[in-house]
Amino acid sequence: MCWQIELLTLFPEMFPGFLEFSLAGKALKEEKWTLKTHDLRQFGHGKHKAVDDTPFGGGAGMVIRVDILDAALQATLPQDDRPVVYFSPRGRVLQQKDILRFVSGSGLYCICGRYEGIDDRIFQKYSIEEISIGDYILSGGEPAALVLMDACIRLLPGVMGSDTSGEEESFSEGLLEYPHYTKPAKWQGYDVPEILLSGHHGAIAAWRQEQAEMVTRMRRPDLWDSYQRNSNLKNND
Amino acid sequence: MCWQIELLTLFPEMFPGFLEFSLAGKALKEEKWTLKTHDLRQFGHGKHKAVDDTPFGGGAGMVIRVDILDAALQATLPQDDRPVVYFSPRGRVLQQKDILRFVSGSGLYCICGRYEGIDDRIFQKYSIEEISIGDYILSGGEPAALVLMDACIRLLPGVMGSDTSGEEESFSEGLLEYPHYTKPAKWQGYDVPEILLSGHHGAIAAWRQEQAEMVTRMRRPDLWDSYQRNSNLKNND
Repeated sequence: MCWQIELLTLFPEMFPGFLEFSLAGKALKEEKWTLKTHDLRQFGHGKHKAVDDTPFGGGAGMVIRVDILDAALQATLPQDDRPVVYFSPRGRVLQQKDILRFVSGSGLYCICGRYEGIDDRIFQKYSIEEISIGDYILSGGEPAALVLMDACIRLLPGVMGSDTSGEEESFSEGLLEYPHYTKPAKWQGYDVPEILLSGHHGAIAAWRQEQAEMVTRMRRPDLWDSYQRNSNLKNND
Repeated sequence: MCWQIELLTLFPEMFPGFLEFSLAGKALKEEKWTLKTHDLRQFGHGKHKAVDDTPFGGGAGMVIRVDILDAALQATLPQDDRPVVYFSPRGRVLQQKDILRFVSGSGLYCICGRYEGIDDRIFQKYSIEEISIGDYILSGGEPAALVLMDACIRLLPGVMGSDTSGEEESFSEGLLEYPHYTKPAKWQGYDVPEILLSGHHGAIAAWRQEQAEMVTRMRRPDLWDSYQRNSNLKNND
């Protein structure tokens, strides 16, 4: 069975967006994943199908109503155990290990918010994972959903050209990746590090490990700390 | 003069993608921002216009050649001081303050990589900001570029409906946002916090501040730490 993604959104026309192209688009045509959008507007009230209202307590912006969201979820939530995700800067920060977990399941159901967000009571009734793709503010949940989908789809079986190219990359070992070089070996006075031309596989692997550790330590002390903690745990086993 | 974004990509058809819709799409039609894509494939070598080659030192995947990237940049880089951004999981992690900086300038030039990445020597010749939108792996730089564009465009003058709705939101004060509620006040046994119905603006503001601090402390100890450090600095001024 293929990986199924369903989305609840006010902008169904935003999907599949850029995922129509490249390897993800090919995989969609080959039904390695499927996409279903549900238009939240359908569940709106009145002539204008309003889905939002002003926030209690005052303030700018509009909030999506809990009763409308509830009606939409009752009508469209699939009867299986796939994760239900809501995108918000208040959520847990997305990591590669979440992607691996999502990919190992049957799919995802994503709720895309707009405006100031959704009435917080929805989280009391439903088990929803609040996820943030990063510490910046987007126009809505749709860009975040597309990024999450992209990160998942490339890891589905048969989507990437080479099955091995997902193995050695940033975060797979808790480190950023070592630098890459290709032909020409000499270019405008900048040379490729000689060791990479040596043919000594052991020495090359050691150099790459050293480079990965160095760039992680310099650029991401937070990742470096957890990498060291994990290494120590392993060594103490 | 409007905000200009230029992109160097192997998939120009991915743009403007979902930014064609909603407020960003309206602003594009109104020329509050402009979009120009440059097809990296044009600068490729040989009959198949190849842009990549195998990595020195071995390993899976392909690397974009430095000479081809250089030719593309020479031909297309604008003659102004706008930031040049390359998206990579090895980059500095994008924050809302970067968005504010990008929006205050004349625009951006974005390099979107694919495959295993680009030959690292390009960073020796050019001043390029390496940026990561988060600790997960994408199919390429294009999804990251679209997210960065979305975060910037919503802050351009006249794009958001209400000019104030950008002010009180997550990260603007270094805290996650307080919870939102709207009508109905009573719903399926879940009530809106009474204080929000009280009409006491001072008490509501205090409650919201308390909620923002609590959710930040519980969900994001990292943000809470820097919020406290910044508060202490201000108080010591």
